[in-house]
Amino acid sequence: MPPTFKFIRRVEFSETDLAGIVHFANFFRYMEAAEHAFFRSLGTSVATPPVGWPRVHAECDYKRPLRFEDQVEIALSIREIKAKSITYDFVFTRLEPGPAEECARGNLVVACVTKAADGTMKAVPIPDDLAQKLKVAQTAAS
Amino acid sequence: MPPTFKFIRRVEFSETDLAGIVHFANFFRYMEAAEHAFFRSLGTSVATPPVGWPRVHAECDYKRPLRFEDQVEIALSIREIKAKSITYDFVFTRLEPGPAEECARGNLVVACVTKAADGTMKAVPIPDDLAQKLKVAQTAAS
Amino acid sequence: MPPTFKFIRRVEFSETDLAGIVHFANFFRYMEAAEHAFFRSLGTSVATPPVGWPRVHAECDYKRPLRFEDQVEIALSIREIKAKSITYDFVFTRLEPGPAEECARGNLVVACVTKAADGTMKAVPIPDDLAQKLKVAQTAAS
Amino acid sequence: MPPTFKFIRRVEFSETDLAGIVHFANFFRYMEAAEHAFFRSLGTSVATPPVGWPRVHAECDYKRPLRFEDQVEIALSIREIKAKSITYDFVFTRLEPGPAEECARGNLVVACVTKAADGTMKAVPIPDDLAQKLKVAQTAAS
Repeated sequence: MPPTFKFIRRVEFSETDLAGIVHFANFFRYMEAAEHAFFRSLGTSVATPPVGWPRVHAECDYKRPLRFEDQVEIALSIREIKAKSITYDFVFTRLEPGPAEECARGNLVVACVTKAADGTMKAVPIPDDLAQKLKVAQTAAS
Repeated sequence: MPPTFKFIRRVEFSETDLAGIVHFANFFRYMEAAEHAFFRSLGTSVATPPVGWPRVHAECDYKRPLRFEDQVEIALSIREIKAKSITYDFVFTRLEPGPAEECARGNLVVACVTKAADGTMKAVPIPDDLAQKLKVAQTAAS
Repeated sequence: MPPTFKFIRRVEFSETDLAGIVHFANFFRYMEAAEHAFFRSLGTSVATPPVGWPRVHAECDYKRPLRFEDQVEIALSIREIKAKSITYDFVFTRLEPGPAEECARGNLVVACVTKAADGTMKAVPIPDDLAQKLKVAQTAAS
Repeated sequence: MPPTFKFIRRVEFSETDLAGIVHFANFFRYMEAAEHAFFRSLGTSVATPPVGWPRVHAECDYKRPLRFEDQVEIALSIREIKAKSITYDFVFTRLEPGPAEECARGNLVVACVTKAADGTMKAVPIPDDLAQKLKVAQTAAS
């Protein structure tokens, strides 16, 4: 198993839908929240100009629903670091109410970009110091 | 009754919560959507630099719930135009399934601001041509 | 090209994020809105007890960002109808401001389920009359 | 100053909008999250059948914007407990980046209801044991 960064959150009322479960689109918000907490754990922020991190691919497989007030662990691991992009894998596990059960798996591919004055984005190499930190996180035992 | 601008939308699944009704915070998104459609009806956009329109007050009274696939009319009227702010009133009416019923009433107070380079906002007079259009909309029979 | 159902919407302010573009999770809300409009076009609703339609897979590839007030076409086509699930493909095209450009592609796999009294869901065959309508929609020229 | 229950959260990327600040409707989601954490602090849950808690009034005054990754304290106090409703007051304070600053104030009026089989809601007295806990929380020093 690869090193993982674990992020825990509790399901909020506004994240559920009339089916009584977390709306499927919110799993992507949860993945992103884990990614941003991971960046903070490296002593940085995803919002560090001049680079930004638009998503180029997002995917999720749903196994079991999450419900209001469930406590969920989102485990992030880095699958691949390329010159200008990162691929993250995510595993969602309901911790409470127990017993712990895997509920979903997903992944995100994010590009490192800079934005021109007219708003167009251009892929650029991941800044060296950040790439270094990411590689350590990718391989270090957690 | 003051002149009103009417905006219609259908309730989406992701806007409901586990109680089976539209989450109360989404009524504020609906008010804002009506406001922005109103600006488009004046031939302009709320996103017209250099001014922006942060909310300084938002309020809603809920009478009847809205449900998935209900068709809702959001009627906007201008209560007051000041030098640097606007107060809007909103009435939510469920059109379908009928018979039509009032479901909620709300209001927004929005300020006209410009943003400094450091991100701080400063209230400024509403641009003349826009203020003129708003005054016409406030008094013209709809 | 397969027959498609086309759904058009305008990007709302609350759907954007601080990067100035539509938040990536909202593309999944847009796909679902198109799916539900498609069901309405068949004279039915996705909310027709006793069956429900949880998502088992969701995926999106992002090519170009969508921005506030862009007019977007979401074209839905049915890739596959199985006994207990449907796979939809989606193509996002910005219509305005023009020229028209493809912005994203995605897909959803949804299961047909019933819910037991304790909330657990069980996959069941798609009701016959609905399966029939879906097959017609899958093959008819649009 | 009344006894308060304090709930802290960090602003997420998906909660911001193209103006670079937390979308105003999300302040209502934050108030509700604080309310639900308050219920948990009393050893109960807002989702305890047969009663539910629809909002009948919601209001917010915005003083300063909240931004991505800000750490925000939402302080809840009970203004009034009636037989069938509760009024909560909320104060939003940005804790980080410091110095601490008040950013907004709001309130919610929520009704205690039961839901009939046809979905209609009826106001009912707050269950005794919960009313007792709420009164203690309203008056106890925090």
